[in-house]
Amino acid sequence: MIIVMKPNAKKESIRNIIQIIEGKGLTAHISDGKEVTIIGVVGDKTKLQDQNLEISEDVDKIVPVTESYKLANKKFHPQPSVIKVGNVTIGGEEFVIMSGPCAVESREQLLETAHAIKKAGARILRGGAYKPRTSPYAFQGLEEEGLRFMKEAREETGLAVVCEVTSLAAIESAVKYVDMLQIGARNMQNFYLLKEAGKTGLPVLLKRGLSATIDEWLNASEYIIAEGNPNVVLCERGIRTFETATRNTLDISAVPVIKDKSHLPIIVDPSHATGVRKYVKSLAMGAVAVGADGLMIETHPDPAHALSDGPQSLTFPQFEELCAGIRPLAELMGKKF
Amino acid sequence: MIIVMKPNAKKESIRNIIQIIEGKGLTAHISDGKEVTIIGVVGDKTKLQDQNLEISEDVDKIVPVTESYKLANKKFHPQPSVIKVGNVTIGGEEFVIMSGPCAVESREQLLETAHAIKKAGARILRGGAYKPRTSPYAFQGLEEEGLRFMKEAREETGLAVVCEVTSLAAIESAVKYVDMLQIGARNMQNFYLLKEAGKTGLPVLLKRGLSATIDEWLNASEYIIAEGNPNVVLCERGIRTFETATRNTLDISAVPVIKDKSHLPIIVDPSHATGVRKYVKSLAMGAVAVGADGLMIETHPDPAHALSDGPQSLTFPQFEELCAGIRPLAELMGKKF
Amino acid sequence: MIIVMKPNAKKESIRNIIQIIEGKGLTAHISDGKEVTIIGVVGDKTKLQDQNLEISEDVDKIVPVTESYKLANKKFHPQPSVIKVGNVTIGGEEFVIMSGPCAVESREQLLETAHAIKKAGARILRGGAYKPRTSPYAFQGLEEEGLRFMKEAREETGLAVVCEVTSLAAIESAVKYVDMLQIGARNMQNFYLLKEAGKTGLPVLLKRGLSATIDEWLNASEYIIAEGNPNVVLCERGIRTFETATRNTLDISAVPVIKDKSHLPIIVDPSHATGVRKYVKSLAMGAVAVGADGLMIETHPDPAHALSDGPQSLTFPQFEELCAGIRPLAELMGKKF
Amino acid sequence: MIIVMKPNAKKESIRNIIQIIEGKGLTAHISDGKEVTIIGVVGDKTKLQDQNLEISEDVDKIVPVTESYKLANKKFHPQPSVIKVGNVTIGGEEFVIMSGPCAVESREQLLETAHAIKKAGARILRGGAYKPRTSPYAFQGLEEEGLRFMKEAREETGLAVVCEVTSLAAIESAVKYVDMLQIGARNMQNFYLLKEAGKTGLPVLLKRGLSATIDEWLNASEYIIAEGNPNVVLCERGIRTFETATRNTLDISAVPVIKDKSHLPIIVDPSHATGVRKYVKSLAMGAVAVGADGLMIETHPDPAHALSDGPQSLTFPQFEELCAGIRPLAELMGKKF
Repeated sequence: MIIVMKPNAKKESIRNIIQIIEGKGLTAHISDGKEVTIIGVVGDKTKLQDQNLEISEDVDKIVPVTESYKLANKKFHPQPSVIKVGNVTIGGEEFVIMSGPCAVESREQLLETAHAIKKAGARILRGGAYKPRTSPYAFQGLEEEGLRFMKEAREETGLAVVCEVTSLAAIESAVKYVDMLQIGARNMQNFYLLKEAGKTGLPVLLKRGLSATIDEWLNASEYIIAEGNPNVVLCERGIRTFETATRNTLDISAVPVIKDKSHLPIIVDPSHATGVRKYVKSLAMGAVAVGADGLMIETHPDPAHALSDGPQSLTFPQFEELCAGIRPLAELMGKKF
Repeated sequence: MIIVMKPNAKKESIRNIIQIIEGKGLTAHISDGKEVTIIGVVGDKTKLQDQNLEISEDVDKIVPVTESYKLANKKFHPQPSVIKVGNVTIGGEEFVIMSGPCAVESREQLLETAHAIKKAGARILRGGAYKPRTSPYAFQGLEEEGLRFMKEAREETGLAVVCEVTSLAAIESAVKYVDMLQIGARNMQNFYLLKEAGKTGLPVLLKRGLSATIDEWLNASEYIIAEGNPNVVLCERGIRTFETATRNTLDISAVPVIKDKSHLPIIVDPSHATGVRKYVKSLAMGAVAVGADGLMIETHPDPAHALSDGPQSLTFPQFEELCAGIRPLAELMGKKF
Repeated sequence: MIIVMKPNAKKESIRNIIQIIEGKGLTAHISDGKEVTIIGVVGDKTKLQDQNLEISEDVDKIVPVTESYKLANKKFHPQPSVIKVGNVTIGGEEFVIMSGPCAVESREQLLETAHAIKKAGARILRGGAYKPRTSPYAFQGLEEEGLRFMKEAREETGLAVVCEVTSLAAIESAVKYVDMLQIGARNMQNFYLLKEAGKTGLPVLLKRGLSATIDEWLNASEYIIAEGNPNVVLCERGIRTFETATRNTLDISAVPVIKDKSHLPIIVDPSHATGVRKYVKSLAMGAVAVGADGLMIETHPDPAHALSDGPQSLTFPQFEELCAGIRPLAELMGKKF
Repeated sequence: MIIVMKPNAKKESIRNIIQIIEGKGLTAHISDGKEVTIIGVVGDKTKLQDQNLEISEDVDKIVPVTESYKLANKKFHPQPSVIKVGNVTIGGEEFVIMSGPCAVESREQLLETAHAIKKAGARILRGGAYKPRTSPYAFQGLEEEGLRFMKEAREETGLAVVCEVTSLAAIESAVKYVDMLQIGARNMQNFYLLKEAGKTGLPVLLKRGLSATIDEWLNASEYIIAEGNPNVVLCERGIRTFETATRNTLDISAVPVIKDKSHLPIIVDPSHATGVRKYVKSLAMGAVAVGADGLMIETHPDPAHALSDGPQSLTFPQFEELCAGIRPLAELMGKKF
């Protein structure tokens, strides 16, 4: 942590800051510059948590030097994490595709989808039973009934299953049926929910919030890991920008940045990122080439009549085509698919 | 709802769309343009909810014509709503200032603050008992103990009290102690929480999400109102943009836009919007002049040692000065303060 | 300037950095932290301009300590600048309203507008003769003929006149006719144009770029001032964000931030910021209350037939009403209007 | 073009709109909805350019149906354009890499770079002779001397050369030395410059502005093409968002979106998009897989001492490694490299 003083800061102000630092058992290193004085703080900066030095007299700004997330930080855990979901591993050699409908609508729809995506190459079935929708008048999900269909699909196909949870009640139901919990973009900073998901010990798919920085995203993962649950997979699904040609803007750079800063695996969801079916395949290809560990792709037996996110869902033939395109590319990238 | 066909759309594709529309008992109005054909849909468009016409053949795009929120919409409720919180009214003639610490830290801190802000002119005491913090290692709040202090402060001063809730458990506790529930920016689209807050019947202060459009914000309020609870007050607290000179960017235009689109009252929180103490007063002045119904201002007996958001909190003398500046301005705007 | 080393940086890497710093005649202050080493650089950092230390081995990041703009910086010029435009002063006691049509369309339109805005209280006439338009098929301006009308309007009314310039040729024409040059948002980082505008010695109204940070904006002003022309007035006119209810998002916080960081005057343009006529007045009120030195408001004798930006232009009665609202507010803020 | 009336719009208001439309020789199609009336306009909408219908009484909003760009629009030019730059073609079967230093610093630096990038596989040499820099105190380029070195490098290596132009004077010099003009991000809406670049007939590399929508970008290309110069290549180089882990956010979705909306070729510049050397290669891979026609990659013989953008420049060995990675991927995508 570095404290930058204002130009012409009074000696007394500087002395005062040093006293606070030393009073907490830390060491202050002073650099008297031509224009400004800067003070480096050496030691455990959490001891200064109840000292808002930025509003002390003559302080210009505080510059943090280390990241606030520790458990998700590659600096302290250099080996990439490999997360086990059912019998699938994410973050290792496998390239993993999760697929399925935005919302579970019926037993038939889900089972039909499960068989189709398995055949094409997907390893994990996704499906929403609790749907966070912008409008209260849109379809809100089948809730526990949807979870039961998920479990049935798992038993029939051997696919692992992942489902979004939006409340403690949903978590309590979901743990009985699914292999992995998903925290959606809108709940990325619902810290209460993160802690509860962490407590279950189940692997958690943590989607990036619409306007979350990568730093905040990793701090959100820290909430889960700090509960003793290191099984976190990150999912980039587009951020909100001024551009309207796509529903969100896929921040594909997040993949190499996460690989640089964290040991957690990261997958990409081009369906939510663009909201437009015709762009999904090429962005999926881009995600593989940039080094992602997997993909999440929305599929539906009849997208024209999907109750949620139909316009971005692929038909089964489209999904097969996507998988066919990805196969040689994943191989080129050294991944098994 | 308007359907714009692609140039050179096949007649059959157009016929197909018309059939779907008429099959739902709606009417289709066709305009054959020089370049494109457009189809206007007349009737209750919710009947088309399970028809994703945008992916039908030869459809270019769908343009919604009416807003998806109804209960919060001024078009169907032209009179401004006046919300009662304890013995205070928001949205009417009063200009209402809510103030207090970001986090309740102790009984003494809260009571001292309550007395100070009351003296300066505030009508509602704010204070966080459940704190959503970016890092799991930061202070997370006193929880129910904090709520008890809030209630005590209310009894001692007569101020109404508002507290943020972050889970169903927090709501269940809060209803026993406070006059108004706050849904924070990070939970604006935690639809589960919105519904539960709606069910309590208590007035709800709904902060705008960091990257929520005004349209999404009004849809979020719709979740609360749809539970039979029309007592919603909106709070603009800054949106996330590329600018870093302030923590967020206060979208002050939201005030006239909300006044134009909705009947709900709106207040402004310049403390969170800027994150910088020295900018709070002038933005508070701006908020009054632009027509806001009130302000939320963070104050603390000793901001340098606040456990949360100290750098943006005002001291009591600073808060008094702010209130003194606002008094003649509120009067000029025709408000009582 | 501070250099933050990576955790476990090799001693040799640190020695290497120190050598580079000392080799340039500067001093390095070392703080050996528990986790990382930081190196403070004391002396004239421009000597390190051709050293990209951030890519040296084991360097984590470089943190600048001082702003790159000097002449626009309040730290080195604490007194607010008062800029003279014709017989008007901006940045002092006067509250100055500039008004007029987006585009000069005809002699009659301009003269009629000039008389109307003068009567209502405006001091400076604006009008575009060179129009930067998104589409090449939209009206592009009357060019030099428009400038002649501006001059005529000045002579008839005594108003000062300001006109946007978009090229060296436009500057060469404009200096013969107007009192102030405007650099538009799209050209804020057209550094060539900034220098040429600077050389004229005429006061320059520098609009903020759509996605320019305040820091970049002040650096842009530095290009003008560095040519020996300190007569710069800044104009906040909205930034680009995800919100679409208004054309841009008025960053009203820019007013107190600029007042804190620079000595240059700042005015606000709510017409371009919102793009919607009905929101202009309340945002104009907000701008006065937040401490702006003036306003730019688009007006037109017949907005419904304006060739550019009609939807955001006020009629003359609307402009009179706006000025009437501002009068007591400006007075309350200690400004003459 | 569609006009949406307000709920309860007066019949007279609707009649008035219809009269305006018909008065211009266009046809109005009326759809009387349950809630609102919408009016479709059939015919050449440019006839309504001087009618700001959105501010007519009882009009709620105007919805454009067709894009304002025509010459760049795929709808009217379905075949992809292939642009010739020297003896290189962009947009066809070749995958084209442009490379070189951000700024031309010396004859030696440029020639050394030209030979190195040619050997690795690049086809076009880039190098800035006129540098738009945020601060006026940073290196501004060698100007015409730099252009002479570019020409010499072309003659020695056979590479085509591209150079950014920032003024009419720069264009007048550049046409004597280079094969392709570059319009930089900051000048994307410098319409004067676009027109002048268009007039030269030389191919133009048009970088996307930092906050330009894809629609505005295509409109900017329209300025060039409308001068009779169809030789435009687009370059995605990152947009400005809230994320700070990378300098800008690479909007990789722009590649499929442009391919869908326009016939112009598009390349990707991961160097400027991220500003961080270690992320360049994986983003370059992503760009190939997503379907880009080429790349622009900054290289420098000694990035640590580059006068501009050193931290994002690759060394020659790094560039060779990047090209080696791209070779099999480009082939997989059906491109020659």
